[in-house]
Amino acid sequence: MAKARALVLERQHELAIRDIDLPMEVGPGQVKIKIHTVGVCGSDVHYYTHGRIGPFVVREPMVLGHEAAGTVVEVGAGVTNLKVGDRVCMEPGVPDPNSRASRLGLYNVDPAVTFWATPPVHGVLTPYVVHPADYTFRLPDNVSFAEGAMVEPFAVGMQAAAKARIAPGDTAVVLGAGPIGTMVAIAALAGGCARAIVADLAQPKLDIAARYQGVIPVNIREKNLVQEVSRLTDGWGADIVFECSGSAKAWETIFDLLRPAGTIVAVGLPVAPIPVDISAASTKEARIESVFRYAHQYDRAIALFASGRVDLKPLISETFAFEDSIKAFDRAVEARPTDVKLQIVLPQ
Amino acid sequence: MAKARALVLERQHELAIRDIDLPMEVGPGQVKIKIHTVGVCGSDVHYYTHGRIGPFVVREPMVLGHEAAGTVVEVGAGVTNLKVGDRVCMEPGVPDPNSRASRLGLYNVDPAVTFWATPPVHGVLTPYVVHPADYTFRLPDNVSFAEGAMVEPFAVGMQAAAKARIAPGDTAVVLGAGPIGTMVAIAALAGGCARAIVADLAQPKLDIAARYQGVIPVNIREKNLVQEVSRLTDGWGADIVFECSGSAKAWETIFDLLRPAGTIVAVGLPVAPIPVDISAASTKEARIESVFRYAHQYDRAIALFASGRVDLKPLISETFAFEDSIKAFDRAVEARPTDVKLQIVLPQ
Amino acid sequence: MAKARALVLERQHELAIRDIDLPMEVGPGQVKIKIHTVGVCGSDVHYYTHGRIGPFVVREPMVLGHEAAGTVVEVGAGVTNLKVGDRVCMEPGVPDPNSRASRLGLYNVDPAVTFWATPPVHGVLTPYVVHPADYTFRLPDNVSFAEGAMVEPFAVGMQAAAKARIAPGDTAVVLGAGPIGTMVAIAALAGGCARAIVADLAQPKLDIAARYQGVIPVNIREKNLVQEVSRLTDGWGADIVFECSGSAKAWETIFDLLRPAGTIVAVGLPVAPIPVDISAASTKEARIESVFRYAHQYDRAIALFASGRVDLKPLISETFAFEDSIKAFDRAVEARPTDVKLQIVLPQ
Amino acid sequence: MAKARALVLERQHELAIRDIDLPMEVGPGQVKIKIHTVGVCGSDVHYYTHGRIGPFVVREPMVLGHEAAGTVVEVGAGVTNLKVGDRVCMEPGVPDPNSRASRLGLYNVDPAVTFWATPPVHGVLTPYVVHPADYTFRLPDNVSFAEGAMVEPFAVGMQAAAKARIAPGDTAVVLGAGPIGTMVAIAALAGGCARAIVADLAQPKLDIAARYQGVIPVNIREKNLVQEVSRLTDGWGADIVFECSGSAKAWETIFDLLRPAGTIVAVGLPVAPIPVDISAASTKEARIESVFRYAHQYDRAIALFASGRVDLKPLISETFAFEDSIKAFDRAVEARPTDVKLQIVLPQ
Repeated sequence: MAKARALVLERQHELAIRDIDLPMEVGPGQVKIKIHTVGVCGSDVHYYTHGRIGPFVVREPMVLGHEAAGTVVEVGAGVTNLKVGDRVCMEPGVPDPNSRASRLGLYNVDPAVTFWATPPVHGVLTPYVVHPADYTFRLPDNVSFAEGAMVEPFAVGMQAAAKARIAPGDTAVVLGAGPIGTMVAIAALAGGCARAIVADLAQPKLDIAARYQGVIPVNIREKNLVQEVSRLTDGWGADIVFECSGSAKAWETIFDLLRPAGTIVAVGLPVAPIPVDISAASTKEARIESVFRYAHQYDRAIALFASGRVDLKPLISETFAFEDSIKAFDRAVEARPTDVKLQIVLPQ
Repeated sequence: MAKARALVLERQHELAIRDIDLPMEVGPGQVKIKIHTVGVCGSDVHYYTHGRIGPFVVREPMVLGHEAAGTVVEVGAGVTNLKVGDRVCMEPGVPDPNSRASRLGLYNVDPAVTFWATPPVHGVLTPYVVHPADYTFRLPDNVSFAEGAMVEPFAVGMQAAAKARIAPGDTAVVLGAGPIGTMVAIAALAGGCARAIVADLAQPKLDIAARYQGVIPVNIREKNLVQEVSRLTDGWGADIVFECSGSAKAWETIFDLLRPAGTIVAVGLPVAPIPVDISAASTKEARIESVFRYAHQYDRAIALFASGRVDLKPLISETFAFEDSIKAFDRAVEARPTDVKLQIVLPQ
Repeated sequence: MAKARALVLERQHELAIRDIDLPMEVGPGQVKIKIHTVGVCGSDVHYYTHGRIGPFVVREPMVLGHEAAGTVVEVGAGVTNLKVGDRVCMEPGVPDPNSRASRLGLYNVDPAVTFWATPPVHGVLTPYVVHPADYTFRLPDNVSFAEGAMVEPFAVGMQAAAKARIAPGDTAVVLGAGPIGTMVAIAALAGGCARAIVADLAQPKLDIAARYQGVIPVNIREKNLVQEVSRLTDGWGADIVFECSGSAKAWETIFDLLRPAGTIVAVGLPVAPIPVDISAASTKEARIESVFRYAHQYDRAIALFASGRVDLKPLISETFAFEDSIKAFDRAVEARPTDVKLQIVLPQ
Repeated sequence: MAKARALVLERQHELAIRDIDLPMEVGPGQVKIKIHTVGVCGSDVHYYTHGRIGPFVVREPMVLGHEAAGTVVEVGAGVTNLKVGDRVCMEPGVPDPNSRASRLGLYNVDPAVTFWATPPVHGVLTPYVVHPADYTFRLPDNVSFAEGAMVEPFAVGMQAAAKARIAPGDTAVVLGAGPIGTMVAIAALAGGCARAIVADLAQPKLDIAARYQGVIPVNIREKNLVQEVSRLTDGWGADIVFECSGSAKAWETIFDLLRPAGTIVAVGLPVAPIPVDISAASTKEARIESVFRYAHQYDRAIALFASGRVDLKPLISETFAFEDSIKAFDRAVEARPTDVKLQIVLPQ
């Protein structure tokens, strides 16, 4: 343990930049990383505003931040994939590598996963962190720290795209143009869709999504989505619907958007059970996939950034200095429709 | 058209054996079949007792029966796969072969399908029927007419087993031990499951299912199913849950039965939307498949019967003469828990 | 039948533009199309130079050309998806829609397929053709005739990409940068690959492929491909190798390019059986897929063109007037490494 | 290290039962097992007769045996899935759990795997062995030690069946009725095939396979296999061909056995590259899968034994006492066509 400066969520509604004890010893298989950039995620903000997410309650002061990139400054015994000076980004979730789920390659659904900035585990809005090398990924020269800190939220989109089992040239519908819906739309297009029909009520969000080639924005205040999808698909329906709004209302007509034998991917999480029309699903013989965070997506996301096939820089709305972290969080609380991602840069 | 004797549903609650006009001309690609055995299906009974199923309403007298086997007596122009004298069973649903769904191999979800004994289409409780040869399947010598008439309900189980994408040695849970649940359990075992934990409230139904090797019956009046499945799977959960009860209650705890990254197959159809816990699905990263009748399952079912790997004869509870058809339907209305399948044999 | 002007392959080495009898009656389910643009395919050229491809021998004069786009000028009975004036492209292969393969959705492997410009079936280098509406596809306004005539060769790439079952962010290797290899690389990238390492001996071909974002060209005269792939993948290997050269030499080291549990897609067709190292495949637990033309790819290819995610215009090397068709073929025989696709435009 | 009695392969052709130093300390995550039954595998025999298998050469005395079952007698720190007295069987291969392949769930293709009785790693024909608990599997009460020692070879069949992605009711062809071919046929049937057409030259082997319901034996000295498969499948071909002979001859006509879009699983390993007709594969759009040992199959195999759906006891040809181990190996060298599996029981 060592004292380190950090953005600490003291309790609901109360943030402080202050010193706190954090583990700093580098064990075998671990690396120490000097943090450069950290994105502000909706879950960080939710702990700030609500003090909890479902069963996870902030009972002790907790460092926030889990979307991070930085530079390796120390390498533990047995680490062969990384060296000091490597620019990297990190998976915030670390499973038990020997659990039954992990051995099957499903480490994201290992119940033993610990995850940054999820009580009682500290996040990384602090100058240094120690992390397993297996969950630390080298950034190519042409991928910036800012982009490196975008790998985490994009990995959520990649997991959704992977679960969809896209056939090249598929037509997707994305319900919800918030940060996650936008990431999902971009991942779906990069993952093989010809077009992503993105639906939302907020025009500024749609305008941002529409910058990406292949996105067809539909403002559902103005247009009937079922009719639009039918029109755009000659009455056949979409191959895939990514549900990213988490609203029960979206599920009411979701099967009307789908082609026979199409796929729903449930990304948005309603807080309570919501009515689903199993008979309507059955008539279409629909498949419904669900996602939980991501597994094995970091190297894939980085490869897409490096090749230029995915560019998330237009989604970085504003960058704050570490000393202004609380401002960054208060700006995130505002939830401006033109904001997609706020990032914080630590002193180097 | 020609007059033929048939079991006619005149209207809700009223059956008659009488003459009725039925099409008897054999066109190109068609065959004429002398019907031998017809199974009584829950949907036939439901039209009798309720006069409708969802949007399908009995407005005109309609011949019942769609689970049928018989003998080819006439062959239309261009038919090469069948000849007079072949013993056969028939798919009751006939799609538009040129629809977009059919061309993709998904003829069961073609909206243009016509289906025997689904208003306004007549069924086959009558001595002869004309049918497309493409949907008529030859029975091997060692498969009886009684078994041939079981292919239709078993195909529903086969479709569920196919959609589940069983890995050899999987553990399945089957919710509901009615005729469909039992067919699904048998198909799941034939399709590669090591065991099928079958859950129901009715002990006689469980006793029938338990005759099949690999079935583990659980009477949920006596035992907590979630605990039983956990115990039987060392706390891991089932690979697949086949929901065959159609009850909202089954969906309340369905994800607790499942292993991480497991699969639900929704076979039972609740009449209205029912609450589904998307967050619970997500935590397990569950996949939910739905089924609509079946496609490309008849030859597979017949092959399993012919090789002896599936024997459905124990499920034939009683056989009635055609003249006693109304008795057979009234017996079906009783819904005796020891009855799985009642069949009617026509005069030969 | 009616006399029509056409590019006729009289016999090996002998082309003529002359009148020939062609079927011009529009039956039910058919449309008549005024041909606008036809691409010159390697198979057309091969019939010209060799008089045969495998078992298909030119015994009678045959019209060449099968990569075509045009305008609907007449619509047969029962056609609902097209109307006069629609700009369209056409699949050159027409299966028996009722064959077992077609009913399974696998119409490309139906042995009964007839295919334009494959003896004894005429091609479409002629002003009009009659074709089934089910295999005729409407072009959106922003897709030109030139692009429409590229759908056929691109569909080959799409089929390869579909068979590969690309996971988003995969790394592909493409062996061979001829027209097919280039199409496959573009389809693989559009279909979800982060990058396509394209290998060839001819630098001009590599230069053309390298115009596409995500393509990494490797001149195998200069570099060891196994080492390059290892370097680019941190020693892990490629997720997918698309073999498009058809050379036995490519198969010698193909498994060395692959990651554990990776996939080979065999696109190039060696003329005779070639040695394959099954033990090397097994050590990697490799999967090998093969492709035969394409099925269900036209609408997907068109959707990718329409959304701008795929742009094949840079591959159209030169356009010839119909009266210069023989010149176009003689130019194709030259096989200039800078030529990808030559097209012929008919008088409108 | 401790002295233990063992069956030692001193060098090619020379076996001895003698004391040898073996590791006996139980580390964290490990268990110590008293060995009960060990099967004699073809690879053990091959080291005896040839002194090597491919790159693996016997340079030092090595204990043989890797198909083993026994009883847990000591449990290391942190082991929760096993306790003293548990009857178990063990996977002979232990991977690096943190390798890239292992983390993806593909531990069998991890190049770092160490495998019992594969030089320089000792096998288990000795009274005790120390092994990771994660690769040690509890046997239910109704699965004997003899069956437990059959899990290893059956897992090879299970891996082949899993890779085939059997659809319920598929028709399989199995080329070769040796121990592996027989295991594969049984696993394919348990895994969902309706029937397995098993082909071999040796009638006694076919007679043993034919005891299993669903096996159709074909003696290829007497019958043309391509014609037989065509006849049995109405000219369509088999859904899956499991190649278990490892002979180049089998590959000559292998695609003629297959239905369009069917699957080959390469189980047998030819010693050198063999000619494969890629064009024939392509015409069928065949998929070729390969297998390397197995991963995640032990619990599945045990579940099939426990439920009674798979019974391998008829394959145990004779059981030898440990003191007669050399006799057992000499009998195995004879390769009697009526022998499937010989087993050795250790003193308890």
